[in-house]
Amino acid sequence: MEASAPTNDGLFGLNRRTILPEPLMLDGGTVLDQVEIAYETYGTLNADRSNAVLVCHATSGDQFVASRHPITGKPGWWSRSVGPGKPIDTDRHFVVCANVLGSCMGTTGPASLASDSQPYALRFPVITIRDMVRAQMGLLDLLGIERLHAVVGGSMGGMQALSLAAFWPGRVDRVMVIAATAAMPAQNIAFQEVGRQAIMADPNWQGGNYYGTGAAPDAGLAVARMAAHITYLSEESMHEKFGRRLQDRASKTFGFDADFQVESYLRHQGASFTGRFDANSYLYITKAMSYFDLTEEHGGRLADVFAGTKSRFCLVSFDSDWLYPTRESRKIAHALNAAGAPVSFVELSAPYGHDSFLLDVPELDRVIAGFVG
Amino acid sequence: MEASAPTNDGLFGLNRRTILPEPLMLDGGTVLDQVEIAYETYGTLNADRSNAVLVCHATSGDQFVASRHPITGKPGWWSRSVGPGKPIDTDRHFVVCANVLGSCMGTTGPASLASDSQPYALRFPVITIRDMVRAQMGLLDLLGIERLHAVVGGSMGGMQALSLAAFWPGRVDRVMVIAATAAMPAQNIAFQEVGRQAIMADPNWQGGNYYGTGAAPDAGLAVARMAAHITYLSEESMHEKFGRRLQDRASKTFGFDADFQVESYLRHQGASFTGRFDANSYLYITKAMSYFDLTEEHGGRLADVFAGTKSRFCLVSFDSDWLYPTRESRKIAHALNAAGAPVSFVELSAPYGHDSFLLDVPELDRVIAGFVG
Repeated sequence: MEASAPTNDGLFGLNRRTILPEPLMLDGGTVLDQVEIAYETYGTLNADRSNAVLVCHATSGDQFVASRHPITGKPGWWSRSVGPGKPIDTDRHFVVCANVLGSCMGTTGPASLASDSQPYALRFPVITIRDMVRAQMGLLDLLGIERLHAVVGGSMGGMQALSLAAFWPGRVDRVMVIAATAAMPAQNIAFQEVGRQAIMADPNWQGGNYYGTGAAPDAGLAVARMAAHITYLSEESMHEKFGRRLQDRASKTFGFDADFQVESYLRHQGASFTGRFDANSYLYITKAMSYFDLTEEHGGRLADVFAGTKSRFCLVSFDSDWLYPTRESRKIAHALNAAGAPVSFVELSAPYGHDSFLLDVPELDRVIAGFVG
Repeated sequence: MEASAPTNDGLFGLNRRTILPEPLMLDGGTVLDQVEIAYETYGTLNADRSNAVLVCHATSGDQFVASRHPITGKPGWWSRSVGPGKPIDTDRHFVVCANVLGSCMGTTGPASLASDSQPYALRFPVITIRDMVRAQMGLLDLLGIERLHAVVGGSMGGMQALSLAAFWPGRVDRVMVIAATAAMPAQNIAFQEVGRQAIMADPNWQGGNYYGTGAAPDAGLAVARMAAHITYLSEESMHEKFGRRLQDRASKTFGFDADFQVESYLRHQGASFTGRFDANSYLYITKAMSYFDLTEEHGGRLADVFAGTKSRFCLVSFDSDWLYPTRESRKIAHALNAAGAPVSFVELSAPYGHDSFLLDVPELDRVIAGFVG
């Protein structure tokens, strides 16, 4: 069951899906059968299948990297970076982006039906970042892509890129890691835990068994998203964007309405997220991130993880990113240096905080274009 | 109805309460009658009533600054700084600390009974930091204290100290403001809003009318506290304290338990908070903080707020505090300089983040002792 090489579909995704022929052996010890992968592709795979670029998405992202989102109708989340003539040039590269395992946009996750035709819910196994990559390796097998020209990802996408390079070192030439870490810091685990607790505190969560009940833990998921969203922005960008400006009113109401623009904005971010994301997926994906530590099988020695790697690496951080700050990227750069791997590392100046990798940062475009080639 | 000057009660608070004889005219335009103030005092007021020091507490603090907490049984929250021979020396000063208006440890707040003998709940008026100070000025009147030797506060306590200096300039000689701001920044408003949304998303909140129903929005309040607690610590201190260490287990469970110490710690912080704090009070107090902007009646010119002040000021910030960072204190220092007020400003190096003002920072002790005198 090999998928044929598809052609660029422009703004309108093809909504491709496939089922992995082999069961997935997961890090947690369980085996997941009949894993479905939803993915998008752009550009054309060349004759020797050497021009494939895997783009890995972040926590709440999806496969619609450069296609209109089927629910929100918005352009792809990285359409500024992926497309004809763009930094990841689909005129020359065959770009693949798959919805991660555990998510909710078509790839198997907690909302998917198990073999008893009921949703997995919390019967879905807790997964790791490596399990997400494992599923994508299965997809590449199906697409006949033995070796990637490049893997590129920001945030959780960068962690997948690192995991791919670490555990499937023969399958990628160039590894681009943006605003990520090799081991989740305690503060980030803490924020992730707050999000999970917000969801699980919502009575509509019902122990995860809310599918088909007509109720979902939207309130809890919205709070989780609001808290996370603050961490994606810099203090400076929030100040610039909102300051203490009031929302559609001349003075404070002395009530619990959203007086300030920043309150209104956050409420909107929370509420709109619930329309496109599954709360259980949020639990599984954030747990995979909390678990992420590339060094745990190497006694904490990151250089050992990459010993003997043949890949080239490019690391990018942003000076305003306090969620995955520059020191996290620097640790990876030092380890790769120690492992003798070719690595370039740049801290870019951009005001938007962690979200800078998704926003208008022309210097990032140049770095991506230069590295992916 | 003047309270007599009480004596130092050591670790065991006197649980003093009084009712203000005059109604409080609030910033929101409403009038609050029969306002009760719960407070503690330490030391003895001298004959000319010139040795009084008002200590103002932070968001989730209370009047038990140096007395054992009646619910938790723990020592007072600032017993390291207030007491005989301590930086705020109760052998020489008469220290007053009152539970703020809107709180839940005895001072009138949303859980208090209104004139219809039912709890105010959301009928309680939305208050400001200045309203909190207003209530404390009423208490000082009762205690016969016309002019304070000093007012001292950290975090929201520092905002009260600033408000007192700005709006009752004749009532205080020395003003000590630790880890605070003169106008709540957007990012902090955002975190405060997440906390409020977490509470209001809890069905047990019931529009605020949960008193006497046997159910309280504990789950929402716990999530609010967890999110806030992260902001009180520095990334560095979380890393030092918890890192990625597991909680009472040898390996990850691949479940949604608290695998990591930091998760377990946060859950404990959230759960224990619900035993001593009222969720509606949390709404009112965080809203007052979000509203806080000393400059709003002066067109944004902070120097004008303090024009002609006769007080001396001391500002302290901590280098690891990302919630009320040094730049916020520096703005106040510049404004006071511009207003011609005597001001000293020091950024202390301490690893604990915002919570440094409550923790073991000997340099802070020296600064307090030196300034309060």
